[in-house]
Amino acid sequence: MNDAFPDIPKIQYEGPKSRNPLSFKHYNPDEIVGGKTMRSQMRFAVAYWHAMRNSLSDPFGGGTAQRPWDDGSNSVANAQRRVWACFEFMEKLGVDYYCWHDRDVAPELDTLAESNAAFDAVADELEKAQKQTGKKLLWGTACLFSHARYCQGASTSPNAGVFAYAAAQVKKAMDVTHRLGGEGYTFWGGREGYATLWNTDMKREVNHLARLLHMAVEYKKKIGFKGQFYIEPKPREPSTHQYDSDAAACLNFLREHNLLEHFKLNLETNHATLAGHSMRHEMQVAIAANALGSIDANTGDTLIGWDTDQFPTNIYLTTEIMLEVLKMGGLTTGGLNFDAKCRRESFEPVDLFHAHIGGMDAFARGLKIAHAMIEDGRIDAFIKQRYSSYDSGIGAKIEKGEVGFEELEAHVLANGEPLLGSGRQEMMENLVNDYL
Amino acid sequence: MNDAFPDIPKIQYEGPKSRNPLSFKHYNPDEIVGGKTMRSQMRFAVAYWHAMRNSLSDPFGGGTAQRPWDDGSNSVANAQRRVWACFEFMEKLGVDYYCWHDRDVAPELDTLAESNAAFDAVADELEKAQKQTGKKLLWGTACLFSHARYCQGASTSPNAGVFAYAAAQVKKAMDVTHRLGGEGYTFWGGREGYATLWNTDMKREVNHLARLLHMAVEYKKKIGFKGQFYIEPKPREPSTHQYDSDAAACLNFLREHNLLEHFKLNLETNHATLAGHSMRHEMQVAIAANALGSIDANTGDTLIGWDTDQFPTNIYLTTEIMLEVLKMGGLTTGGLNFDAKCRRESFEPVDLFHAHIGGMDAFARGLKIAHAMIEDGRIDAFIKQRYSSYDSGIGAKIEKGEVGFEELEAHVLANGEPLLGSGRQEMMENLVNDYL
Amino acid sequence: MNDAFPDIPKIQYEGPKSRNPLSFKHYNPDEIVGGKTMRSQMRFAVAYWHAMRNSLSDPFGGGTAQRPWDDGSNSVANAQRRVWACFEFMEKLGVDYYCWHDRDVAPELDTLAESNAAFDAVADELEKAQKQTGKKLLWGTACLFSHARYCQGASTSPNAGVFAYAAAQVKKAMDVTHRLGGEGYTFWGGREGYATLWNTDMKREVNHLARLLHMAVEYKKKIGFKGQFYIEPKPREPSTHQYDSDAAACLNFLREHNLLEHFKLNLETNHATLAGHSMRHEMQVAIAANALGSIDANTGDTLIGWDTDQFPTNIYLTTEIMLEVLKMGGLTTGGLNFDAKCRRESFEPVDLFHAHIGGMDAFARGLKIAHAMIEDGRIDAFIKQRYSSYDSGIGAKIEKGEVGFEELEAHVLANGEPLLGSGRQEMMENLVNDYL
Amino acid sequence: MNDAFPDIPKIQYEGPKSRNPLSFKHYNPDEIVGGKTMRSQMRFAVAYWHAMRNSLSDPFGGGTAQRPWDDGSNSVANAQRRVWACFEFMEKLGVDYYCWHDRDVAPELDTLAESNAAFDAVADELEKAQKQTGKKLLWGTACLFSHARYCQGASTSPNAGVFAYAAAQVKKAMDVTHRLGGEGYTFWGGREGYATLWNTDMKREVNHLARLLHMAVEYKKKIGFKGQFYIEPKPREPSTHQYDSDAAACLNFLREHNLLEHFKLNLETNHATLAGHSMRHEMQVAIAANALGSIDANTGDTLIGWDTDQFPTNIYLTTEIMLEVLKMGGLTTGGLNFDAKCRRESFEPVDLFHAHIGGMDAFARGLKIAHAMIEDGRIDAFIKQRYSSYDSGIGAKIEKGEVGFEELEAHVLANGEPLLGSGRQEMMENLVNDYL
Ligand SMILES: [Co+2]
Ligand SMILES: [Co+2]
Ligand SMILES: [Co+2]
Ligand SMILES: [Co+2]
Ligand SMILES: [Co+2]
Ligand SMILES: [Co+2]
Ligand SMILES: [Co+2]
Ligand SMILES: [Co+2]
Repeated sequence: MNDAFPDIPKIQYEGPKSRNPLSFKHYNPDEIVGGKTMRSQMRFAVAYWHAMRNSLSDPFGGGTAQRPWDDGSNSVANAQRRVWACFEFMEKLGVDYYCWHDRDVAPELDTLAESNAAFDAVADELEKAQKQTGKKLLWGTACLFSHARYCQGASTSPNAGVFAYAAAQVKKAMDVTHRLGGEGYTFWGGREGYATLWNTDMKREVNHLARLLHMAVEYKKKIGFKGQFYIEPKPREPSTHQYDSDAAACLNFLREHNLLEHFKLNLETNHATLAGHSMRHEMQVAIAANALGSIDANTGDTLIGWDTDQFPTNIYLTTEIMLEVLKMGGLTTGGLNFDAKCRRESFEPVDLFHAHIGGMDAFARGLKIAHAMIEDGRIDAFIKQRYSSYDSGIGAKIEKGEVGFEELEAHVLANGEPLLGSGRQEMMENLVNDYL
Repeated sequence: MNDAFPDIPKIQYEGPKSRNPLSFKHYNPDEIVGGKTMRSQMRFAVAYWHAMRNSLSDPFGGGTAQRPWDDGSNSVANAQRRVWACFEFMEKLGVDYYCWHDRDVAPELDTLAESNAAFDAVADELEKAQKQTGKKLLWGTACLFSHARYCQGASTSPNAGVFAYAAAQVKKAMDVTHRLGGEGYTFWGGREGYATLWNTDMKREVNHLARLLHMAVEYKKKIGFKGQFYIEPKPREPSTHQYDSDAAACLNFLREHNLLEHFKLNLETNHATLAGHSMRHEMQVAIAANALGSIDANTGDTLIGWDTDQFPTNIYLTTEIMLEVLKMGGLTTGGLNFDAKCRRESFEPVDLFHAHIGGMDAFARGLKIAHAMIEDGRIDAFIKQRYSSYDSGIGAKIEKGEVGFEELEAHVLANGEPLLGSGRQEMMENLVNDYL
Repeated sequence: MNDAFPDIPKIQYEGPKSRNPLSFKHYNPDEIVGGKTMRSQMRFAVAYWHAMRNSLSDPFGGGTAQRPWDDGSNSVANAQRRVWACFEFMEKLGVDYYCWHDRDVAPELDTLAESNAAFDAVADELEKAQKQTGKKLLWGTACLFSHARYCQGASTSPNAGVFAYAAAQVKKAMDVTHRLGGEGYTFWGGREGYATLWNTDMKREVNHLARLLHMAVEYKKKIGFKGQFYIEPKPREPSTHQYDSDAAACLNFLREHNLLEHFKLNLETNHATLAGHSMRHEMQVAIAANALGSIDANTGDTLIGWDTDQFPTNIYLTTEIMLEVLKMGGLTTGGLNFDAKCRRESFEPVDLFHAHIGGMDAFARGLKIAHAMIEDGRIDAFIKQRYSSYDSGIGAKIEKGEVGFEELEAHVLANGEPLLGSGRQEMMENLVNDYL
Repeated sequence: MNDAFPDIPKIQYEGPKSRNPLSFKHYNPDEIVGGKTMRSQMRFAVAYWHAMRNSLSDPFGGGTAQRPWDDGSNSVANAQRRVWACFEFMEKLGVDYYCWHDRDVAPELDTLAESNAAFDAVADELEKAQKQTGKKLLWGTACLFSHARYCQGASTSPNAGVFAYAAAQVKKAMDVTHRLGGEGYTFWGGREGYATLWNTDMKREVNHLARLLHMAVEYKKKIGFKGQFYIEPKPREPSTHQYDSDAAACLNFLREHNLLEHFKLNLETNHATLAGHSMRHEMQVAIAANALGSIDANTGDTLIGWDTDQFPTNIYLTTEIMLEVLKMGGLTTGGLNFDAKCRRESFEPVDLFHAHIGGMDAFARGLKIAHAMIEDGRIDAFIKQRYSSYDSGIGAKIEKGEVGFEELEAHVLANGEPLLGSGRQEMMENLVNDYL
């Protein structure tokens, strides 16, 4: 397992003074922060599709990525060799988890039977590599958006045969996830939406999507898979509109179709901003519904209108994410999955290391800062104080449902204008900077 | 009632050849389209706040509107005179409904008691004018966003006294709406959101918002008000984020807090596009949940990032809106409320007529085109055919829940690759143009 | 030449009542509108890259396009066969022009010498097809963005060898354009920009871009090519920022580098809206600098943040474009090039016809409406009247430069507040609808 | 001068460990960074309009700001008292400069003569306060966007009388700027644009704008004013489109109208992002044209589509700004003007201190980080190396203009494919974080 990245040693923690770009300056996996090791606070995962399969093409040009271990063929043997490159990468990086789509790890062949057989053959290799290294599968998923058959949707295709194919593919991907001890299974509906309403029966499509998820719930029970189901929101791209557009849309859908107990959300920063929300907003929406499951750790450029899937290096962002994670009590089944790709201009193998190291260090700093904020307590104390009028008196009665419009009108007539304090946004923003 | 617009006659239908800008070329109120008069298909309403109270100021400059009937004072007498200007406007325009916020029709004075008394005094005048003209109140609402006390939210203020004030104001606005025979009551949460999460307890705020709505439901029952409750989504502005951000977010909130049976949505075009959705998308989302109530008929400029509240003149837009309205079986309690203002550069009284005439004619054309599309049937037939694989065979079994993953895998193994037809988006877009 | 689209006849003008989707309802090529045939007013062109080479892949999935005449190989023979499919398409559609990038028509092979030879071999075939059909080349261009060598820019690459390659490629593309009698040559700098400023010397890059263009001007003179040079603005995608971001940025660059006399702009609707401008705005900016050259006729969805390159069917858009074209005195060297692709869901050959027919009919309607507006004169008369205070008196003196601050202060002190009339935006928008 | 903020002492530098929110933790005015005091590197200015005149109203609600020193009247006496509040604020904050519009400091009265007299009376007080405190005027400007007369533009109004009024107002504002020793004068064309092209003669309007600026150049010479002229770009708001939309548009306009030698740009972060650019991009565009003059130091929320004018606290942003400032050799006539307002929820006087302190500390950190980057040199070295192929050989010949297409084609035929190195964006982003 030293074939893919022969010149790159295991990345070590060297502390903030190090000038070695191939070292961690902040991520020290076994250091305790907030009562747990950094490793277990973050549960980093490598995204197989980006790290191993992204050729770095874009709509205006072909691939640039140099991946010497990959012969470019669609063969099972190539797919199996790739497994070891990925595990070498994880080992050298010190990441404990990985995630895949079925078609990332194994080739799609001419028939479902052949594709399934290829998948099994690669799964053998994955199982071997997991055992040998102790690395684990954070979650698996099926790619229901790349093949031409899915161009009008998978479970929301107007063609029932396509629905059937999608179902068969999810079944197999769940089987393999189960076999490999995956801790979760994700649904991302890249084509589950529409290109134009002029040819679309939206209500029928949404019902079909719910149907697929109910089938997945039933099948999970049947095979005894205990992992967590996730839905990943995104508002558009590739579809003009995707039904799982943001956290609220997903929750609404899950509630309407009696699926909420079975699913949590896998939130991605760049999807949040494409939907017009901050990542922190989406996290709070999900947490309020007890439905934050896992995180696709990346970032975008908010001046750009598509999913750039960049590696997250902004300390404000990683601080906000880790603050929400700590406040919800930490990640359980989920993790921080680097759903991020090197820029097309960064095509060398070593760039994969720079990219992941930067992301891991940025989250390590975010974790420490967030932990310091909580320990220090000034931010929380300000917020608690700000809402304190609800802790007693008329406010407590409002919260308990003990008063209605008439009592409140009487209260105003008796007490006159309420006295409001400043929201102190600027002071709070300054305070945030104090922890950086 | 000829004081406010002395030079302007009643606007007449003159047909498409007319070159008189102060005539209807398409809106012929008593013409039957789709089995009903145009008047009852559209149920147009004048928005009191824009037509009567908008000075046309913007963040960079003061008011420009010339409104000779208004002395600019905050007096009850001025407010009462304004009532008659509004009804003269509605009469000359031939619009049957109007909508208001409490603070549009009557001044906010030093205490709640005084404000309530002023409101009653203006309500007397409104009642008189309604009786005299036969005009009706489409819906009323309380303005919970202009006064400084609401700067940090109304029901979501951190200050319980502010919640109480909001409750008292809603109570009174519901009382007056009930007295005037209003057919609905709307909630728009302009400040029910946050400016920054660094000083906000989002979960507590959202619970308070639900509390207010439950109180409203109880009070409605108590006073016997039978009108429809509406919630109006908007993603941001004035707040950085508003809890009622889009149709899906509203529905999710209503479901979570057991309020869905009591509320429908009042959708606004410019709010839809600010949320990144087309108006038609929002309408279909609402209709799928049986929750489309009423429409704020305006438009925005999608290259601009704030709510321009422009009058709708785009025939594609009005066609799409009326198509959804016709397909849901028509408007019942709701209507097309012109929540739109003249541009700051269009400051003369006659511009109010140009603006409303243009909107009414555009909707009249939209109605006729949409009706023609339905009658002709080619669009619907294409869609029905496109999904026909779900009408029998494996598709019907999927819809009925008779098959699961295993049966579908077997189906694919037996049947191979599904045969997909083109989505024909371009052909459909051409077809749409054929009806224009 | 009936191999590629055997079932599709020549598309005929059948008038607005026709229900045949494969007919023109508005585009009647030899009908005179505004003193010229529709054919010569519009000068439609087929974009070889979209019509012949776009597999309809997107960042989330592979190609879907069914192109039975194409064997998918990179061979010269395949490229030559494709030529005849394209000319059959143009013949059946009745489009007179086409446009290409070098790499659309001929394959890129292992060395420049081989690629150039392949290009010549295909050019032989193009020349033959042009002669046989009378079709003409609107403009040629070199693809300096797809190959991996250009991933960090072509003339703005940090690598001088890449600059050299780009120059060699442009030279050859100009040679072939010249040989085929091309009426223009276009530069689109898809990678001429940056991904991040943290690794970029912007000033040096922009100077290199100017260098390439000066070389092109010199070479043009040398070979006696008389066609028009165009620059096509786009703000981003694929680059994070592109130097030719909008019309104003292009003009500023051309002025700074003494290139303005040699270049005009090729404006694309979807690029305009991605830059935050309306297409009409960009056209007026270019026309004011006497620099509007040609048009990439497509459209986008302004709720979507990337270049969707959709076929234009919106009548408001085509009216605005044709209005500007008519007002500038018509197109000369340029044309309306359908830089537009079928949706990935519309993958059948016949969809190419639906798409182009819809665009051509929409422009035909736009032309007729724009011509009617000009003939009728009400819009122009309103604008002329609106600015009439500059036609005499103090306004005329301002325009002639006869007065300065002191005279104008004196004028105000003597005359007091100016009397402003309404801008009448709403009335004008209604008037626009009257012509539809 | 201790009336306005009686409870607030002079803000002191207390170092990064201080927990006193009313202290500087990083801004130490006389500390030397990069060869100059922090004070002279930054040249901070208070924006009179926001600090003293912004009531914190927004389009959905009235003012909330508590400003006890202001009686709310439009009187000259109130305006004069306000002067002392502003200077007390600057003194306590330790800011050396301020900026104003004419109508911020003095009221607009019924006639120009009265307004001018009021302006003079307040200027007397400003002069007194400047002498007493040593504070200086960074730049003055005239407000040509608030009054109703400017609702259709000032120099671009269709009404020549409005042009005259604007000219008279600029004349007076230049006179007062000159009298007060202002180091610059700024033009921001808030209404110099259009609301719709359907009523607009854009070319004529742009020419009128150029006319006004030429008059200003002449008048400047006449009165001997030596300050720098600035133009401030913004793409829209309040206008739908503003002619000075971004740096490139301003430079193009200035070049076309032979004004470039007389003007530099005053760049604002929030205007840059509204135009779809990063602030750093706009700075580099301006610097490349030797036209960066001054900076409106604020920030926006890129998920929001209007100008929020927030105080800048993001360390990445302040680092990038100061890096560009240091690289251009420092600010000369310009400064960092806090064109920023407290949030509407932050309405107490002390919030003005929190806001400015946070901005000043954030820029102090940005300055130190930027200086460290330059001193350390790794970023610059990487960039220099990346372009080194242009320092000799074929690259140097390209830059010197010694080769054309034919030589470069020969070079490629002889040398084959160039060898490109990775752009290393991820490594550079990690490196940036190392300096934080
Ligand atoms: Co993801
Ligand atoms: Co993504
Ligand atoms: Co509304
Ligand atoms: Co609105
Ligand atoms: Co184009
Ligand atoms: Co394009
Ligand atoms: Co500014
Ligand atoms: Co601003």
